[in-house]
Amino acid sequence: MEAKKGGRRRFLSGALAGLMVGGTRSESGQALGAQTPEVPSGDLLAYGERSRFETSKRTSQGSFSWLFNRRPDLLTPLQDSLGIITPPSLHYEVSHGSQPPDIDPSRYRLTIQGLVDRPRSFTLDELKRQPFVSRIRFLECAGNTTSHLRQAQNAETVQLSHGFTSCSEWTGVPLSLLLQKTGVQEGAGWLVAEGAEAGKHIRSIPLEKARKDVIVAYGQNGEPLRPENGYPLRLVVPGLAGFYSVKWLRRIKLSDQPHLVHQGRFRHSPSQDDSGGFRFEIGPKSVITFPSGGQRLPSRGFFMIGGLAWSGGGAIRTVEVSSDGGRSWKEAQLQDPVLPIAHTRFSFAWNWHGEEAILQSRCTDELGQVQPTLAEFARSKGVTREQLLSGSIREVGHFNVIQPWKVTRDGSVHNALT
Amino acid sequence: MEAKKGGRRRFLSGALAGLMVGGTRSESGQALGAQTPEVPSGDLLAYGERSRFETSKRTSQGSFSWLFNRRPDLLTPLQDSLGIITPPSLHYEVSHGSQPPDIDPSRYRLTIQGLVDRPRSFTLDELKRQPFVSRIRFLECAGNTTSHLRQAQNAETVQLSHGFTSCSEWTGVPLSLLLQKTGVQEGAGWLVAEGAEAGKHIRSIPLEKARKDVIVAYGQNGEPLRPENGYPLRLVVPGLAGFYSVKWLRRIKLSDQPHLVHQGRFRHSPSQDDSGGFRFEIGPKSVITFPSGGQRLPSRGFFMIGGLAWSGGGAIRTVEVSSDGGRSWKEAQLQDPVLPIAHTRFSFAWNWHGEEAILQSRCTDELGQVQPTLAEFARSKGVTREQLLSGSIREVGHFNVIQPWKVTRDGSVHNALT
Repeated sequence: MEAKKGGRRRFLSGALAGLMVGGTRSESGQALGAQTPEVPSGDLLAYGERSRFETSKRTSQGSFSWLFNRRPDLLTPLQDSLGIITPPSLHYEVSHGSQPPDIDPSRYRLTIQGLVDRPRSFTLDELKRQPFVSRIRFLECAGNTTSHLRQAQNAETVQLSHGFTSCSEWTGVPLSLLLQKTGVQEGAGWLVAEGAEAGKHIRSIPLEKARKDVIVAYGQNGEPLRPENGYPLRLVVPGLAGFYSVKWLRRIKLSDQPHLVHQGRFRHSPSQDDSGGFRFEIGPKSVITFPSGGQRLPSRGFFMIGGLAWSGGGAIRTVEVSSDGGRSWKEAQLQDPVLPIAHTRFSFAWNWHGEEAILQSRCTDELGQVQPTLAEFARSKGVTREQLLSGSIREVGHFNVIQPWKVTRDGSVHNALT
Repeated sequence: MEAKKGGRRRFLSGALAGLMVGGTRSESGQALGAQTPEVPSGDLLAYGERSRFETSKRTSQGSFSWLFNRRPDLLTPLQDSLGIITPPSLHYEVSHGSQPPDIDPSRYRLTIQGLVDRPRSFTLDELKRQPFVSRIRFLECAGNTTSHLRQAQNAETVQLSHGFTSCSEWTGVPLSLLLQKTGVQEGAGWLVAEGAEAGKHIRSIPLEKARKDVIVAYGQNGEPLRPENGYPLRLVVPGLAGFYSVKWLRRIKLSDQPHLVHQGRFRHSPSQDDSGGFRFEIGPKSVITFPSGGQRLPSRGFFMIGGLAWSGGGAIRTVEVSSDGGRSWKEAQLQDPVLPIAHTRFSFAWNWHGEEAILQSRCTDELGQVQPTLAEFARSKGVTREQLLSGSIREVGHFNVIQPWKVTRDGSVHNALT
């Protein structure tokens, strides 16, 4: 329908142009040699679309989850990423239910109840009238790089190995401000957040963290949240594993204790979780996105190694790159802006001589935390590298090991995590 | 087709879920009261789309330009904007030709020629191998707020009055670096950039500026440029009027003089242009986006006034807001990050008592430049306010006057630029 309208408009405008102002098109066509063809569409007008030549897309790890009424988890194509902002259309998605709930924003309510002085429900319009903040922050799924542990070393691409992280500009109300409105009763130490999806994701967050920097977000990269990212409202809990950032947020209950039986996935309760439990802070992590697994260098010569670094602990301070399997490291260049708890883009000039090479990056955050090798990581967890790679150890916390990529003599690039 | 596939998948998964794991959906449905409906789509997977409830869109100023084989100019819906990033789908567009050219990136070449030592054509892959930068920078059309001068005071909405500005994270190669590769011959002082569209937009830029901070950009907000924003390659010339940022860039010619006969629109040559000519720097400008023209406050009470400020001169230092027609001003809060030559979001808490009120914002940039009132602006140009508002003076340079909005007793908001 839109396309048809566009076609009619083009026909009309073309015909009238020929009659009325003549020449312009053929003149410029001549100047250009052949006339440049035009994007065949009238529907790019009101709300634009990407070029028909661009096909970057999210993908899943190939599980059969959809057979079990579960929407597949979707990974961001980091190999195609540019800068630090992830397009919302390509934001990773880990679903705790099935399809995103189809919420009419005019009927939407967020209820805050429990150990508060004045339980309240907010409409979306009421929330948008509150003081707002916008923050560029990354999210990362707790299972990124290990969601199916054995896949860490077998993932053929950086999308499959690291694609459960994305970075957006989030806009919303500071949660601390809403809690000022409701008042918080003595004894409240926890906040239990509940989503509206069929899977009913529930997550407990310490009140201290909730008051510090958590955002009740309605905006993402300048427009409303996308359906699969929690439309119309989600929590953004900076620096902690993604599952805390409850999507389709419909209820916040203040409590004197955490809600221990988490429905849906990520069931580990604090007592079972020796990786930090409720303080599941994302460690310093980085990965080279070019060249990365599945890509191929077309020839010897000069390349810009590029990648992303991030940490739940704050801003990235340095990224180092090694092209000799970790024997020597050199400092990469960080691209402005370098923001706390945000993806940070780095680059490193490299001349490939055609020999086999192992490329890897290692980041340090502003707290001085350094991204570990697989061996260092295993040691810190009291397990062996083999146990980690075989997938026999499942609960290891945030898996932030250095990711090596091997460039072979034919230019092809492969996962070299061993 | 996609929708059909999604439908079949949902049917299958629903049926299997019922047979195999049972209960989950109805359990959670019960917990939620009624079961939450789901977004009816399988095509949100690979490349997501926005909610069906969201309809914010670009619009034109209602000219009949399309009748003359010209694509209508499109304005960003600033009244819906959040944060500082503009969604590429809603980026403003001023076309110098008709439809965007439909360029196959694999056949694309950028040629640099003229007064250079080594004329060269670059493929897109070659450009992407070069050192890159990402910068969050605004663009603004020279004609923003005055493109049809008389409309400045009649524009009913902030989209119509100020919508020819947007802000993105641009990724690409520093132009200075490409010029190092080609070498620059003695005597070269200008760079003439040419687009590939039918209208063949040509623009001259002083070499000094080209070497300073101009980007040959292929990325916007983490993905390739959109067709209407110059796919696959455009200039981004920070701080100068948008027409310098040549889209669909296919040729750069170094010359000892500017190309004076500019084809297409914006024909003013430097000698004719007393507003600064080739140094058409964007002055400090701000506008309140909420509440703004065409909106309506639902009741008395507390509101967050919100808006955007920007300057070609660097970072925004302060924004002040007046709610009494300019008699008193108070400092607004700036939202992080505050970046040079980028949109900056400000907010200001305001309690509306139900009386008529004139709201306006005024910004100061890091150079100390202050956004002028209409009277101050007219005085600085040696013309009268009436001449400006009647549209009898057309070439006034960047029109960055303070924009007043009148809130009437019924809560409706109107343009009050007089």
